[in-house]
Amino acid sequence: MSKDERLVKQITPKSEDFSRWYAEIVQKAELADYTPMKGMMVIRPYGYAIWENIQRLMDDRIKATGHVNAYFPLFIPESFLKKEAEHVEGFTPEVAWVTAGGNEELEERLAVRPTSEAIIGYLYSKWIKSWRDLPILYNQWANIVRWEKVTRPFLRTTEFLWQEGHTCHETAQEAEEETLKILAMYKEFCETELAIPVIAGRKTLREKFAGAQMTYAIEALMSDGKALQMGTSHNLGQHFSKAFDIKFEDRNQTLQYVWQTSWGTTTRMVGAVIMAHGDDSGLRLPPRVAPVQVVLIPIAFGNWKETVLPAVLAAQETLKKAGLRVLVDAREEFTPGWKFAEHEMRGVPLRIEIGPRDVKAGQAVFVRRDIKAKEPVPLGELAVRAAAVLDEIQASLYAAALKFQDDNTRVAETYADFKDILENRRGFVKSPWCGGGECEDKIKAETMATIRVIPPDCEGPAAEGRTCISCGREAKAIAYFARAY
Amino acid sequence: MSKDERLVKQITPKSEDFSRWYAEIVQKAELADYTPMKGMMVIRPYGYAIWENIQRLMDDRIKATGHVNAYFPLFIPESFLKKEAEHVEGFTPEVAWVTAGGNEELEERLAVRPTSEAIIGYLYSKWIKSWRDLPILYNQWANIVRWEKVTRPFLRTTEFLWQEGHTCHETAQEAEEETLKILAMYKEFCETELAIPVIAGRKTLREKFAGAQMTYAIEALMSDGKALQMGTSHNLGQHFSKAFDIKFEDRNQTLQYVWQTSWGTTTRMVGAVIMAHGDDSGLRLPPRVAPVQVVLIPIAFGNWKETVLPAVLAAQETLKKAGLRVLVDAREEFTPGWKFAEHEMRGVPLRIEIGPRDVKAGQAVFVRRDIKAKEPVPLGELAVRAAAVLDEIQASLYAAALKFQDDNTRVAETYADFKDILENRRGFVKSPWCGGGECEDKIKAETMATIRVIPPDCEGPAAEGRTCISCGREAKAIAYFARAY
Repeated sequence: MSKDERLVKQITPKSEDFSRWYAEIVQKAELADYTPMKGMMVIRPYGYAIWENIQRLMDDRIKATGHVNAYFPLFIPESFLKKEAEHVEGFTPEVAWVTAGGNEELEERLAVRPTSEAIIGYLYSKWIKSWRDLPILYNQWANIVRWEKVTRPFLRTTEFLWQEGHTCHETAQEAEEETLKILAMYKEFCETELAIPVIAGRKTLREKFAGAQMTYAIEALMSDGKALQMGTSHNLGQHFSKAFDIKFEDRNQTLQYVWQTSWGTTTRMVGAVIMAHGDDSGLRLPPRVAPVQVVLIPIAFGNWKETVLPAVLAAQETLKKAGLRVLVDAREEFTPGWKFAEHEMRGVPLRIEIGPRDVKAGQAVFVRRDIKAKEPVPLGELAVRAAAVLDEIQASLYAAALKFQDDNTRVAETYADFKDILENRRGFVKSPWCGGGECEDKIKAETMATIRVIPPDCEGPAAEGRTCISCGREAKAIAYFARAY
Repeated sequence: MSKDERLVKQITPKSEDFSRWYAEIVQKAELADYTPMKGMMVIRPYGYAIWENIQRLMDDRIKATGHVNAYFPLFIPESFLKKEAEHVEGFTPEVAWVTAGGNEELEERLAVRPTSEAIIGYLYSKWIKSWRDLPILYNQWANIVRWEKVTRPFLRTTEFLWQEGHTCHETAQEAEEETLKILAMYKEFCETELAIPVIAGRKTLREKFAGAQMTYAIEALMSDGKALQMGTSHNLGQHFSKAFDIKFEDRNQTLQYVWQTSWGTTTRMVGAVIMAHGDDSGLRLPPRVAPVQVVLIPIAFGNWKETVLPAVLAAQETLKKAGLRVLVDAREEFTPGWKFAEHEMRGVPLRIEIGPRDVKAGQAVFVRRDIKAKEPVPLGELAVRAAAVLDEIQASLYAAALKFQDDNTRVAETYADFKDILENRRGFVKSPWCGGGECEDKIKAETMATIRVIPPDCEGPAAEGRTCISCGREAKAIAYFARAY
């Protein structure tokens, strides 16, 4: 649609059809679009600007914890992918294969990277010789291809963008510490920047990364009550170092295999922001990742260009100087009401309206996107108040999401209760589990719920005296179950 | 090699074997490494940190000129690539093809993007309807694959990283203005940030981008006298808008095809920095893109940890606060001399040594990487003097490169002179040219020199009364010829 036809229409209410509501926001807020290739999306400038903010804030944390960025090849020879048995089994069904280059058939097929452990393993074996070379703390920002059957913009796409950390350590303990340090960093990132509370813990063996010794994850609850995995951190043990022969001479001149980790977060986080915070008027962006934090809208009456516009432009300067991301929407072909709806759809956290009467009164009108509350603010206090309101919005989005998570985390001690909750209320269900994969499979087949995560304080002692909801045997842990994306 | 074995050895002198010198710097400064896949390199953290600086400085300029970033798919259906006749002919020989995904053969082959005009053209035709949607000023940072036969790290690799701008305009004039604005931006970038002077102008039809109406480029002279194309800016005219049906309703309600441009710079710029500034001790990095601008080296004697180290750490704080990128190299397993050689190899612009006698004298010793000059500086003046010295180094690298370019740009009015210069001196040769492709082909076949660029002031009138060095007919322009990478 051209700008003049592109009226902001009512979107499907979230409560009526969550999937459709999500797809409509993605389109109408111009976050992403479909392409003729199934499951491959294009990230439009507004969506990409959210990703750029996420990227910058995550990259700062990755570097502050001592990691450096590098860039590894897009392709991985098939023989490399086959070196780690679980890895090839897990990823082969999802690989896109390059079989010809420059008019010639290749002798060996090349995988378009579904993840980079295999090519990085080869290079680490070249680079690492001594304990003095350790730890290796590398990260890369890259595109990834996985041939997915069911796709949805941002949440599950054939191509996506991510960061993947790949580290090597002298000891098993250091690798485990790194894995958990990153898990904590991801949790803090989601809660601070995305205003999304998450549950952190380990995955079950069924749900772990193909080739990992142990996978940890953070899981969030979306506002339809389904869980979304927001990031994973894997302790790879020596699985890949043995497969790729990554050895170092230790402090006692003995050759040892390195201990590795890998960890990642993706453009899926943009989808999480939509689903955790959006409402029936569209997106509600957390100010810290919003491309536009404040939109200034002149209310055009009479000689507004002489009276209102200068006040709006002065306000823009003031807010920019205060370090805020500001947009002035002075387009004349749209009414204020049309603009309000558009910027609500795009989730701009704070709208500031200035009309002829406001100029006379020396004030502006603040309208918060999250709760739609109005507040007159003296022009002299714009910057201070805007910064404070943005902080309030960030905190209030987080508080609402946390309340939602608390309200939708329930305990079920029996399978009947468990099924009832999943059928009628969704959310997280905390239930005792025997630790067996068979029970996990059976519960999944019967209820579509999987074990999302087992936090450390839900292991062993926490389950004492309780019985598995599926088999009735002694429980080993209290697991967080949910239906998930 | 492990760190303790990895002694900085003498590299092949530049004058003896330029190619080997280049390859050795890439390896020994740990900028990049080879992979088992021909032509695919891995960019190691130190090389990637240079690229991150380039990226940030370029991205700032791209955004300051009103462009926004987006992300388009990695794959392009073969049928899309075929829509623009010249484009498919130019790129097909270089394409890597995905033919299978997730265990199934694809119905249509997908090209791994060799450039993105074809997929972007399809999307622009969906998004653009009215003159109100114009101009579209998009850029993307992405990886690109071209199946190259002869490769060299950074300069020509099967996969490389780049930014590609893709814009749409209402009129032919606006598109031409955009093309030239970007060309000027690229020139200013290379000269300001990379300290590399470039010649800007148009390409000949033989050398233009496959599908462009006119290609402009910036060309630099490397220190072996060969030219390197540092960036291109294409006026696409309506070639792609007609192929992809990108139409808009103009201000008179008439349907028109949009006018487009595209433009790009790549990781090749890292190679240019090596080749333009490096010397027999290794890299010489321009301070503005150097990952480490200042390396602080304590001279360890006696109780240096009580005397020297605190002074070094205080200096680090002071320099960091002044916004400089600083590294302290206090490793005990290496001698100062070893460290000097390593940081020279890595091109760190400024080395600051502090030893016991310096602490007593309240000073530090500055050593400039570019000219290896030493200078004692009072500890109280560290930050001010370091910033000034870095500016001097940046300016002095540029001045040296400009002098080299001037000294190696010669005029040849006859083919005999032309061949003599190329055979014995290399560099740019400015010669009158008739404008014919046949002469261009003949000169290339006989001398391996191509027309790199024709600056605006070398067109028409500038060539008046002069004759083509190849055919003797009336000259239409004075062209910059050179052997090139």
